[in-house]
Amino acid sequence: MSKPTQTDPIFTLTTGPVDSYPAVLRALARPVLYDYDPAFLEHYENVSRKVQKAFASRTMPVILQGEPVLGLEAAAASLLAREDVVLNLASGVYGAGFAGWAKRYCAEVVEIRVPYNEVIDPQSVADMLKARPEIRVVAVCHHDTPSGTINPVAEIGRIVHAHGALLLVDAVSSFGGMEVYPDTIHADLFVTGPNKCLGCPPGLSLLSVSDAAWAKMKANPAAPRASMLSILDWEDAWRADRPFPFTPSVAEINGLDAALDLYLDEGPENVWRRHALTAEATRAGILAAGLKLWPASEAISSPTTTAVRVPEGIDEAVLRKEARRRYGVVFSSGRGETLGKLTRIGHMGPTARPIYAPIAITALVGTLSAMGVAGLDLGAGVTAAMAVIDRDL
Amino acid sequence: MSKPTQTDPIFTLTTGPVDSYPAVLRALARPVLYDYDPAFLEHYENVSRKVQKAFASRTMPVILQGEPVLGLEAAAASLLAREDVVLNLASGVYGAGFAGWAKRYCAEVVEIRVPYNEVIDPQSVADMLKARPEIRVVAVCHHDTPSGTINPVAEIGRIVHAHGALLLVDAVSSFGGMEVYPDTIHADLFVTGPNKCLGCPPGLSLLSVSDAAWAKMKANPAAPRASMLSILDWEDAWRADRPFPFTPSVAEINGLDAALDLYLDEGPENVWRRHALTAEATRAGILAAGLKLWPASEAISSPTTTAVRVPEGIDEAVLRKEARRRYGVVFSSGRGETLGKLTRIGHMGPTARPIYAPIAITALVGTLSAMGVAGLDLGAGVTAAMAVIDRDL
Amino acid sequence: MSKPTQTDPIFTLTTGPVDSYPAVLRALARPVLYDYDPAFLEHYENVSRKVQKAFASRTMPVILQGEPVLGLEAAAASLLAREDVVLNLASGVYGAGFAGWAKRYCAEVVEIRVPYNEVIDPQSVADMLKARPEIRVVAVCHHDTPSGTINPVAEIGRIVHAHGALLLVDAVSSFGGMEVYPDTIHADLFVTGPNKCLGCPPGLSLLSVSDAAWAKMKANPAAPRASMLSILDWEDAWRADRPFPFTPSVAEINGLDAALDLYLDEGPENVWRRHALTAEATRAGILAAGLKLWPASEAISSPTTTAVRVPEGIDEAVLRKEARRRYGVVFSSGRGETLGKLTRIGHMGPTARPIYAPIAITALVGTLSAMGVAGLDLGAGVTAAMAVIDRDL
Amino acid sequence: MSKPTQTDPIFTLTTGPVDSYPAVLRALARPVLYDYDPAFLEHYENVSRKVQKAFASRTMPVILQGEPVLGLEAAAASLLAREDVVLNLASGVYGAGFAGWAKRYCAEVVEIRVPYNEVIDPQSVADMLKARPEIRVVAVCHHDTPSGTINPVAEIGRIVHAHGALLLVDAVSSFGGMEVYPDTIHADLFVTGPNKCLGCPPGLSLLSVSDAAWAKMKANPAAPRASMLSILDWEDAWRADRPFPFTPSVAEINGLDAALDLYLDEGPENVWRRHALTAEATRAGILAAGLKLWPASEAISSPTTTAVRVPEGIDEAVLRKEARRRYGVVFSSGRGETLGKLTRIGHMGPTARPIYAPIAITALVGTLSAMGVAGLDLGAGVTAAMAVIDRDL
Repeated sequence: MSKPTQTDPIFTLTTGPVDSYPAVLRALARPVLYDYDPAFLEHYENVSRKVQKAFASRTMPVILQGEPVLGLEAAAASLLAREDVVLNLASGVYGAGFAGWAKRYCAEVVEIRVPYNEVIDPQSVADMLKARPEIRVVAVCHHDTPSGTINPVAEIGRIVHAHGALLLVDAVSSFGGMEVYPDTIHADLFVTGPNKCLGCPPGLSLLSVSDAAWAKMKANPAAPRASMLSILDWEDAWRADRPFPFTPSVAEINGLDAALDLYLDEGPENVWRRHALTAEATRAGILAAGLKLWPASEAISSPTTTAVRVPEGIDEAVLRKEARRRYGVVFSSGRGETLGKLTRIGHMGPTARPIYAPIAITALVGTLSAMGVAGLDLGAGVTAAMAVIDRDL
Repeated sequence: MSKPTQTDPIFTLTTGPVDSYPAVLRALARPVLYDYDPAFLEHYENVSRKVQKAFASRTMPVILQGEPVLGLEAAAASLLAREDVVLNLASGVYGAGFAGWAKRYCAEVVEIRVPYNEVIDPQSVADMLKARPEIRVVAVCHHDTPSGTINPVAEIGRIVHAHGALLLVDAVSSFGGMEVYPDTIHADLFVTGPNKCLGCPPGLSLLSVSDAAWAKMKANPAAPRASMLSILDWEDAWRADRPFPFTPSVAEINGLDAALDLYLDEGPENVWRRHALTAEATRAGILAAGLKLWPASEAISSPTTTAVRVPEGIDEAVLRKEARRRYGVVFSSGRGETLGKLTRIGHMGPTARPIYAPIAITALVGTLSAMGVAGLDLGAGVTAAMAVIDRDL
Repeated sequence: MSKPTQTDPIFTLTTGPVDSYPAVLRALARPVLYDYDPAFLEHYENVSRKVQKAFASRTMPVILQGEPVLGLEAAAASLLAREDVVLNLASGVYGAGFAGWAKRYCAEVVEIRVPYNEVIDPQSVADMLKARPEIRVVAVCHHDTPSGTINPVAEIGRIVHAHGALLLVDAVSSFGGMEVYPDTIHADLFVTGPNKCLGCPPGLSLLSVSDAAWAKMKANPAAPRASMLSILDWEDAWRADRPFPFTPSVAEINGLDAALDLYLDEGPENVWRRHALTAEATRAGILAAGLKLWPASEAISSPTTTAVRVPEGIDEAVLRKEARRRYGVVFSSGRGETLGKLTRIGHMGPTARPIYAPIAITALVGTLSAMGVAGLDLGAGVTAAMAVIDRDL
Repeated sequence: MSKPTQTDPIFTLTTGPVDSYPAVLRALARPVLYDYDPAFLEHYENVSRKVQKAFASRTMPVILQGEPVLGLEAAAASLLAREDVVLNLASGVYGAGFAGWAKRYCAEVVEIRVPYNEVIDPQSVADMLKARPEIRVVAVCHHDTPSGTINPVAEIGRIVHAHGALLLVDAVSSFGGMEVYPDTIHADLFVTGPNKCLGCPPGLSLLSVSDAAWAKMKANPAAPRASMLSILDWEDAWRADRPFPFTPSVAEINGLDAALDLYLDEGPENVWRRHALTAEATRAGILAAGLKLWPASEAISSPTTTAVRVPEGIDEAVLRKEARRRYGVVFSSGRGETLGKLTRIGHMGPTARPIYAPIAITALVGTLSAMGVAGLDLGAGVTAAMAVIDRDL
């Protein structure tokens, strides 16, 4: 209960939690309604319909009352049956990590693994499905955030769908920041959250569930029911005339409501464009300044996260601490295998605006230079970033 | 996405979610920090220490990132081992309901059941423990909210402790509204939440865990790990120098911080006193108006919820709908077996102030009279409530 | 800088400042834009158009950057010329008080005075105008808040207009709570504010100015220019392409924006109806409880304020202090000549909802009974209030 | 009432209104208390004491309920007597502009004028006072914001004080951003506001009044009383046991309270240091990029505003419009004689942090280059700014 010793940061340029839009913060402060108040029941249905609109999905979404790791764990527990063979596509820490949950619930987990700075080749999926035709479910992480790389989910989705397996997609940190619609990519269970590109605080999972996935979960005797891990419990919870399995997170729903209004009013294409442009400008600046990107190519780099290789001899934890101390700018570290090897700049929601590219470059290059990395060219970095931004204006 | 058709209520006099304190609502609107920002890490430790202070506990608490049903399910999953015999004390819908979770995780659930308008007799617990000495865990719901009754947990705790079993207490809707300290009542796993008497929105669970409970969970091979249902994952998460198992609900933590400041600054005794006085005045008014309480006696009535029997011939759902339509006042229904039989008035957090007693009485008696219940005396009800309030002024 | 010793009130049932609507409070927390930011310029024009719509006026309104006493002082300073004879209608403290400002700016102030619990007889105005045909301006306070009485401004307006004089109306605490449109009542300078029935904090004046009033002010060499007291400076300030004379109160404009949305969305008629009903129920309850109203008749009683005579032997300041201490309910005192003689209950904005009638009656009658006033019947009071409310449901 | 067509800016780097600190925005959303509520009366006294502490003044401050132009107009109206000879020091648009108010209230206004990119030489004041010993009041603008220059008020104050005249200081945009204490500089009437370096919205004036100034105002028969322009009315308004002349702006007082807490908790010296450093880094970057400063020397440049000369052939209005359209960054224009000749970058309150220097340089240089100004070196600008920032880290 001692007084805080830490000052607040100035810019949180992380990959999540990201700072929320001001309108979202104000929405969190709305009066808290009783969950069975008719005004809240109607509100919850309205918010659910907005999620559906943002998903452009035929089916109604499910909102789970916990940050997206809940959505992913619940997906594994609900969709995977004891006898299933599951193909897990592991191109990064999060994608690989899903196998941990999957193994608890199915008979066998087959994997395709690539280095964590590359992405999955769709052909390798097709080959594996041919080799192991009994595969029932394929799991893929769209944006493996700890690597800042984007898997080709649309191509993978076509192959999986043609094979007749179900596709489980972790789109937590891509949805809302780039084009990815669950139905279009043949995702049967699509998990995302409002706390990345939609600019909300963490606390909810947003799921899109295909008819086939609903059928498989209902037929799965091991699928959780009467549990925090249940998806089935929430099937009809969006309806104003149906009960909730347990109390929804009223304030988070209010925040999500405001975030969806912002997203739909601005226009998804416009939102994606500023994410992509911010990332492109950041990459250009990073490279021009003399630093290296983590992803093997720009083509597979995420529009919502730029992962920068840490120069030889630099302690990455110190790098982030110094950037914050010197300039008030907060970056994300790597995770697991990428921890210490890269620093990540988030372009998500409110920070996915081009002017944040020179800010990030300035803070990152400034810190590294101050830490003794020679030969970095801050001026060239900022100039290159601005050239990208100015190109389209 | 149609426009709302429901106007907002004026007074939410429910048993949770309750409306939040204004200071809590504003705290929800604080900037969202990155969870690994040193300012947030320090903040999280500070909030944890405030929870510990409110618990007056020797051990550090655990904050789980979901409303208290998560805390209860996680408690069952973590504390109960496959071979355990568990005694579940069922004096209401919530207490009885815990058996559903318990049965998934242990060898046998023994129960003591009493009518849902009565409470557990401690002697019956002593007798059962003598009869079934192999009982390892006893579970009790302190305030069975759907009945508005308070179980004698301190006495039960003494008996259970003397027997050598562990006590699991659901104090979700009592903690913060009346005196109940985990260590004092010998609770080994104590589950509550900020969304009742602390006046926060739903979205977190607060747990106090005794050393014995930690030891039992660690020794339990079935206790969830790397899961939303895990308590073990969070053991050291309160420490600023330790990682989180997954992203905490930043905004909810901010709200909790403000709520704990309010609670500790006002003084727990003062907070409990206004809960008790509001409830006592409400009961006096309800009785004087000609209505009946649900609990078998006032002595076992909750200071945070007043459950009122629905008069003969009245549809309880219509009653609540009418109270809201006519006066903008929202009450809670019963749950499960008590649904339709009683209406509940919450006295929790911001509404636990005596002046809400005449409001609740006016709205409830007014509605019932308008619905055709003869012989109710609103004037007598309000006057009796005021007599209680004025008594101590 | 000592810690606050006062707890916050529970219900602020005052005649202004009134507590603001939650949506207004959140709007005050919007980011503060630069006043010459194109987004703010557009916003200011939009808010001005909403004021015009609420005024249903042919002319664009003026927003002055100070609470309505600024509007009234500026009106006197701007509209009244050195040579003018002004008729001031004094039926209460505020109406009479306007003469203080008027005398500074004009040749002569003529007055019609009635006791402060009565209102102006329009015939007396007609008679005066016949007797003193040189009267150029007539000033009237629509709702003399310290008395809780409503002057017949529509009838007075017709007479003044027919005479050819200009009408200056103080509608500060009536507008937004009852039907009163500047054009309809022939008001040439109409002054109100958002801090009463619109449910905003104090800090702005809203003026409607007729073409004739603009002409008179422009022709008035003494009308302030380049001054906080100027109305002329602000004539075109509503236009997005025109400069502000000085910086507008950005946050208050944001709050006003939200308040106007609430007012126009709910529908003015609906808003007025709940003000009237709350006042009627309050009066019924006050009378039935055995207290007396201040206004000479219910017909002239305000729908936004109920002024209650203080019983013999009661110190009114103690009464209010006790009501707050005992029940957390805050009332307004009288002002000037009415100070000590009456206590006022506000029905403005968020508290203009019928359920606040029994709350006010309970707190007021409860306090007076506790202070030793014999013979009051709280039960009868609440019952009578509820009968009014229930009548139309 | 059409939908907004303007998107919100990303960074408001203006000279006021400036964006407010998040904690101030949340404070604006506190419940609105009745001004005579004992909790508000105590609060108002507490806030007044915090202002006094920030002023480090022997006397209690006056808070006027309107943005600082009210404070300045009221100062002229209150302090200047009909017979006074006033010396006005005009080194910029604001300083010169004060003569307009002064002339209304005194016998003669003497002026010392210097070009608007220079500041007043204290010796010239001494000379003038010798030449015109009857001068009773000297008025000076500390920071003439439209020029971004700082007058040497401490030296001027010593001279004026020694002469026996009173000193009226406009410290609106310097106080809170640099060291300037009313008593230390011998200011008799010191006018500032919370809407610049304290990071509040516009709507209040903060005045420090010496005993001599109180005496002079009280002796001045023309000093406004019972008026929005009165200072005298508010002399004792800070006392919890005294009435307000009219309703204070409750929400703005709440915002001010939070801003003062931030200021005093961070420590004034620390706050000033980050203002100075941000300005120094900005100037270094502007110069290195090939642009010119408006002030004749860096020594007289403001730590809270950097005024940049507009390059030949550039339309300054287009410059600002483009900076906003391209990068979401908002700058301030000049005013009056400086309009069109310079663009201003504010370093006030939340934006007075070094990292904003490279942001401002990037947006300004980027825009000018895009508009066709040749030879600017963005890289050199950012690098030079960072060198200043890094110097002290």
